[in-house]
Amino acid sequence: MPFAPFDWIDDEARRRADAGLVRTLRPRPAEPELLDLASNDYLGLTRHPEVTAAAAGAARRWGAGATGSRLVTGSTALHAELERELADFCGFEAALVLSSGYAANLAALTALTGRGSLIVSDAGNHASIVDGCRLSRAETAVVPHADPDAVRKVLHAHGGRALAVTDSVFSVDGDAAPLPELADACRTEGAALLVDDAHGLGVLGEGGRGALAAAGLAGGEGIVTTLTLSKSLGSQGGAVLGPARVIEHLVNTARTFIFDTGLAPAAAGAALGSLRLIRREPERADRARAVATALYEQLTEAGLTAVRPDAAVVSVRAPSADAAVRWAADCRAEGIAVGCFRPPSVPDGVSRLRLTARADLTQEQIATAVAVVRRTAPVS
Amino acid sequence: MPFAPFDWIDDEARRRADAGLVRTLRPRPAEPELLDLASNDYLGLTRHPEVTAAAAGAARRWGAGATGSRLVTGSTALHAELERELADFCGFEAALVLSSGYAANLAALTALTGRGSLIVSDAGNHASIVDGCRLSRAETAVVPHADPDAVRKVLHAHGGRALAVTDSVFSVDGDAAPLPELADACRTEGAALLVDDAHGLGVLGEGGRGALAAAGLAGGEGIVTTLTLSKSLGSQGGAVLGPARVIEHLVNTARTFIFDTGLAPAAAGAALGSLRLIRREPERADRARAVATALYEQLTEAGLTAVRPDAAVVSVRAPSADAAVRWAADCRAEGIAVGCFRPPSVPDGVSRLRLTARADLTQEQIATAVAVVRRTAPVS
Ligand SMILES: Cc1ncc(COP(=O)(O)O)c(C=O)c1O
Ligand SMILES: Cc1ncc(COP(=O)(O)O)c(C=O)c1O
Repeated sequence: MPFAPFDWIDDEARRRADAGLVRTLRPRPAEPELLDLASNDYLGLTRHPEVTAAAAGAARRWGAGATGSRLVTGSTALHAELERELADFCGFEAALVLSSGYAANLAALTALTGRGSLIVSDAGNHASIVDGCRLSRAETAVVPHADPDAVRKVLHAHGGRALAVTDSVFSVDGDAAPLPELADACRTEGAALLVDDAHGLGVLGEGGRGALAAAGLAGGEGIVTTLTLSKSLGSQGGAVLGPARVIEHLVNTARTFIFDTGLAPAAAGAALGSLRLIRREPERADRARAVATALYEQLTEAGLTAVRPDAAVVSVRAPSADAAVRWAADCRAEGIAVGCFRPPSVPDGVSRLRLTARADLTQEQIATAVAVVRRTAPVS
Repeated sequence: MPFAPFDWIDDEARRRADAGLVRTLRPRPAEPELLDLASNDYLGLTRHPEVTAAAAGAARRWGAGATGSRLVTGSTALHAELERELADFCGFEAALVLSSGYAANLAALTALTGRGSLIVSDAGNHASIVDGCRLSRAETAVVPHADPDAVRKVLHAHGGRALAVTDSVFSVDGDAAPLPELADACRTEGAALLVDDAHGLGVLGEGGRGALAAAGLAGGEGIVTTLTLSKSLGSQGGAVLGPARVIEHLVNTARTFIFDTGLAPAAAGAALGSLRLIRREPERADRARAVATALYEQLTEAGLTAVRPDAAVVSVRAPSADAAVRWAADCRAEGIAVGCFRPPSVPDGVSRLRLTARADLTQEQIATAVAVVRRTAPVS
């Protein structure tokens, strides 16, 4: 037998090609050629001169890398400053910064649960939450999407140590989780609540303080939130926010924190720069939400099926995966970048275009985008 | 019952305190106060003006963040360039850059194995490999440290799809894996070989091309390697290198690639800057190894028990976890930063000091460091 340990990969590639599900990287140039309605740069900060200057300044002052894990040489005063200001802005006692939002979810889920405990997870939760559940060795109960009664029932039946976990804003459809009801169910049943606020930070709550602040839940006894620095803050990295004892516990036990190099100073500096800018210009959050609403209303008036956005993500239904891919490509050909979600990235198997609002989109740009999306829509 | 879903954390904190195993973050200032023998900045590049300028320039040119996942808006021409040059430098067909080395290991292990397949993993492998095995749902056989015969036996007994995985240089003791023997076992048994070259890149092989190049295995049919950009390259991020079909497969299936924001441009730019610098100054790799050897020889002459280094990590035995912590603190008090590894970060339960060589350490600095480590050594 010839040595060919990867031949099975060709079979899978053929199956993907037959199903029209091949994914290809399309590197973009430095000067934007398209009107961006696909990124998660909700506040339009990633190219803001103050934010890129903060990134550049941090690289020059602190070095290009953190040089080690956070517990060895990878903690700088810059990381500590970012942690303090993040916690303060969002209304939590303490914060811990990790190298990505993905790592933050793995850290929180593995360190706060474990064998013998129960995780109750929304069916629409992000892949990093699903992977965190798997890694945790806890029993995981997946409950129907946005169903606090189901969460309550599962928690009640369990009894022991438990944690419910949800996205604050679901990344595919842009709908918000019923946080007050979930918090109430957790409180009654003695369970912790972990909320991934990746798409809420910067967009929801007063001045963009996030979904927990918006719901009056920030800093609560049993509440922990994970953030990413890579969306509204225009940088890279993630964070876990919660009671100080929870953060100390993560420092001591979370493997994706302990065994990972610290976040690069440039990314920490950029996130801090964005945070300070948002404090000074709190209207950006309102503006991002208003743009999303305008997009939704104009798309709906144009006869398309969209989901009313709770934050900055607007989801538009496509008749099939193939049609969604063609639709997004046609938009691109007309100068508009939109996201395209299809299996296996959509929990329900329904393909969509995913449009994201940015605080700095003009009325004219919104109108142009809607016109293109409408003109290129598949006839169904 | 009062609502207290995190009270169990206090019990664990007490147990940790009683066992002397509390970990605390010590943020460092921008201007180094200590002589660094603790970081993984093996080539002394993280503060190199060319590397920090590359980071700063990339942030200014491309923005502070990648703005989305690599398959949506997060791939720039800069990422593509880094991937090409990494693959070329290390002698592989293709490369894929991820947000961390941790994510790279999770990606490679989950995408290249799966239910029904077998992973054979060295008992000393890094936490990110262990987590990748757990996430993969493959059957995992943990074999004794650096034992290619054990790997061969387990592979032979299995028969089906299989992959052996090892660190190239083990992060705790700095010893090298027997790569030629492992590759031979895999070839005979039809298995793939995944090598985590986090501590080999930049240090081993001609001009720092890594452990696979050093062993003449780079670019082999069944060989895949993971890298981190956070050690010798002085930046942040990770990469998977292998045959083009393997990389395409990862683009299509690896969850920690697909559902994670792309690496920040500053980090990609810094890594590319370092790579170009290493090509121009290939002597840095030799110098890092020579410094490690000098450290080892002088420590051993001083009567300490150290492991002969195969790369840039020098491990010195401590009599206990407590003693190791005190020893490292005493070194720090005398101006020398050294790492301290203790349970649960050491697979064998033996605590150590971990000293790392840097290409830019002078003879005098080496002598000073050894004198301090010797003077502060616990009497055993
Ligand atoms: C809901 C959600 N959580 C977590 C993440 C992961 O964050 P990051 O990209 O910073 O790793 C993402 C997106 O990437 C997300 O959409
Ligand atoms: C052997 C090994 N693999 C992987 C990693 C993870 O790389 P990163 O820190 O870039 O996530 C590390 C250290 O951090 C390591 O020592």
